[in-house]
Amino acid sequence: MTEIEGGITTPLGFKASGVHCGIKRNNLDLALIFSEFPAVAAGMFTTNKVKAAPVMVSQRKIRRGRARLVVINSGNANACTGKRGFENAVKMCDIAARELGISSEEVLVASTGVIGEQLPMDKVEEGIKMAVKSLSSQGSSQVAEAIITTDKKIKQLAVETDILGQGKKKVRIAGVAKGSGMIAPNLATMLCFITTDACIARDALKEALQRAVNSSFNQITVDGDMSTNDTVIILANGRAGNKRIKTWRKKPTLRVEDENFEKFCKSLDYICIYLAKSIVRDGEGATKVFEVKVEGAPFPQDARRIARKVACSNLVKTAIAGASPNWGRIMAALGAAHTKVKPEKIDILIDNVLVVKRGEPAGAPLSDLRERLSKDEISMLIRLNQGDCKATFWGCDLTEKYVRINKRYV
Amino acid sequence: MTEIEGGITTPLGFKASGVHCGIKRNNLDLALIFSEFPAVAAGMFTTNKVKAAPVMVSQRKIRRGRARLVVINSGNANACTGKRGFENAVKMCDIAARELGISSEEVLVASTGVIGEQLPMDKVEEGIKMAVKSLSSQGSSQVAEAIITTDKKIKQLAVETDILGQGKKKVRIAGVAKGSGMIAPNLATMLCFITTDACIARDALKEALQRAVNSSFNQITVDGDMSTNDTVIILANGRAGNKRIKTWRKKPTLRVEDENFEKFCKSLDYICIYLAKSIVRDGEGATKVFEVKVEGAPFPQDARRIARKVACSNLVKTAIAGASPNWGRIMAALGAAHTKVKPEKIDILIDNVLVVKRGEPAGAPLSDLRERLSKDEISMLIRLNQGDCKATFWGCDLTEKYVRINKRYV
Repeated sequence: MTEIEGGITTPLGFKASGVHCGIKRNNLDLALIFSEFPAVAAGMFTTNKVKAAPVMVSQRKIRRGRARLVVINSGNANACTGKRGFENAVKMCDIAARELGISSEEVLVASTGVIGEQLPMDKVEEGIKMAVKSLSSQGSSQVAEAIITTDKKIKQLAVETDILGQGKKKVRIAGVAKGSGMIAPNLATMLCFITTDACIARDALKEALQRAVNSSFNQITVDGDMSTNDTVIILANGRAGNKRIKTWRKKPTLRVEDENFEKFCKSLDYICIYLAKSIVRDGEGATKVFEVKVEGAPFPQDARRIARKVACSNLVKTAIAGASPNWGRIMAALGAAHTKVKPEKIDILIDNVLVVKRGEPAGAPLSDLRERLSKDEISMLIRLNQGDCKATFWGCDLTEKYVRINKRYV
Repeated sequence: MTEIEGGITTPLGFKASGVHCGIKRNNLDLALIFSEFPAVAAGMFTTNKVKAAPVMVSQRKIRRGRARLVVINSGNANACTGKRGFENAVKMCDIAARELGISSEEVLVASTGVIGEQLPMDKVEEGIKMAVKSLSSQGSSQVAEAIITTDKKIKQLAVETDILGQGKKKVRIAGVAKGSGMIAPNLATMLCFITTDACIARDALKEALQRAVNSSFNQITVDGDMSTNDTVIILANGRAGNKRIKTWRKKPTLRVEDENFEKFCKSLDYICIYLAKSIVRDGEGATKVFEVKVEGAPFPQDARRIARKVACSNLVKTAIAGASPNWGRIMAALGAAHTKVKPEKIDILIDNVLVVKRGEPAGAPLSDLRERLSKDEISMLIRLNQGDCKATFWGCDLTEKYVRINKRYV
């Protein structure tokens, strides 16, 4: 697998566009991602009980496992907007379907922005019409721009997998994402759209997406808040002409995968982890990213709980911001994670330096640690020494700027 | 019940003292609370798996239900200090017992401060000797001062209950607390010591303390982090000479209480809620306190989960800091609380103004809300309209100053 130039229009048979229709004052605010050919689709959505209208609409439609167009707007989340909001989300799909002459059943929708305001549907309708007209195979960066809110950078990546298609051309996968605030497991005001020209069965696509999201977007946190609008969607149109990738059950308990499935998953994971980490790096007010790796847990959920608790701790996050070598906060956070781990067995390494040995200070010199904590990327390894399970989480520091940004935003 | 002047030495038969022994550079750092007469005792401690040595020691001793002395130090948490730390916590009790000529079994210990450093035991020993010599019935404010860390104010309160003791004197209860950072359910770097001259049975005292803590210290949050050292201890020496307060089981499922038990609980709750709210008000960097009241939940745990999630949300806390009337963040936070509530039934009131009606904007004018959110104390009422259960939580805003304080602190 190799990274290649480009974005979501790099896989064969995809077009995209991003336009400004006036939901936001300036900046692009409406995007389309279109497969010129029928495609299978899978999606994962926020687990928040307060779900935005577009989430409810897309979640329902994607059960069919087929979709070829996604309509996205930023600047307005269409959340807490009741029956009218739901109707507007449906309407966004209908307008786009009509303009492109496809079935509305094949159109998904996603929104991000302010909660509790109705969409300006006249502007949205105009925007969709404009966006249909400007669909192009060069449109990926426009989409990346049109979906961001407080993000400072656009986030996209394309890769070439090791799976061979027709004419020895390799299968491609690409993704685009937005993040910034309200980032927490599971998913968070984050949108991610993935395109691939792979030929793949619906079930296999769904399985691959779940795995990739669980080891990427569900392992990041910016502020521990979970959004009403989180959406990850993948469209696969089969234009690479590879032998259909599939998985099947030999027995109820035994799922069999063909060899290309593994290759597909590897590339998809790579894209999702790249985008997830980009989201953390670009977290509101963030100046540093840190990785919390937990090893030696008795159960997988223990590893996940501890990694998450440490990555979400405001005291750990401010310590990172201040390059303060305060491992006591890491110990306090992991102890609060509702597990049964024994503190007296735990080792902690910060940037490969042992700071806690069997639950007690290892005597690492503070000045050295302070220097290591001044880097942009910091790694923490928590060895529980109580089993074989592990988990990795990524977080960012908590700064005065995060507070400033979120005090102002309405 | 009425508030009265004074602190933990106001109930009959208690003496206290606070001294500077050099654990901290300046300021008082060691305190004693002493009942001149044998006393029954109850305690509640952090549920963090990483427990400080003094917590382990006191938790073990208090099972007997009797104690008459508490030794407290600030500036060093004696946490993550291994076997030596445990021995030092035991030694603190032993030294104090020896100096006062009482059994070490009757001595409890609590610490707060930096994690992972051994106590300077020579200084601590000197300090305990000094503190024993300066024990006085005027010592309550010295204790209040000696136990604080980043707190800006001391926190103490004394009340006279409606329970009559000997010579028609009323039974008294008083409490002292410290808080500031790492405040979250359940308990947090918070210490609280309560004294009373009530004559009360051990079981009744334990029951009363549990109820009071659950409706006060377990319902507050400053930063969602839970400490290794949280301790609440109550000593009751019976000097008021009231008829012994008790509760007993008539059947396994039926606990009977005498009428004075209810009065006792009412006063104890009052003190604990007062101290808990003082802790939030004095939270690190806090400029505002807010109350999250949840009503109409299908189950008590739903009400608690939602109240906690909203009070702990960084986005809600920064919105409060900025007086930003962003109720969408409240909706997003409550939806993430792992309950089965239906968003379309929810009403939200901020400072008595309806902002969300049945899950949708109620159309309250933003300028008016901004003004209401500029107050020091803000109330939120979340009516789920899906049952009869309720819960109240108290939180504080998240400010640039919180970040600044915790970037520096090592």
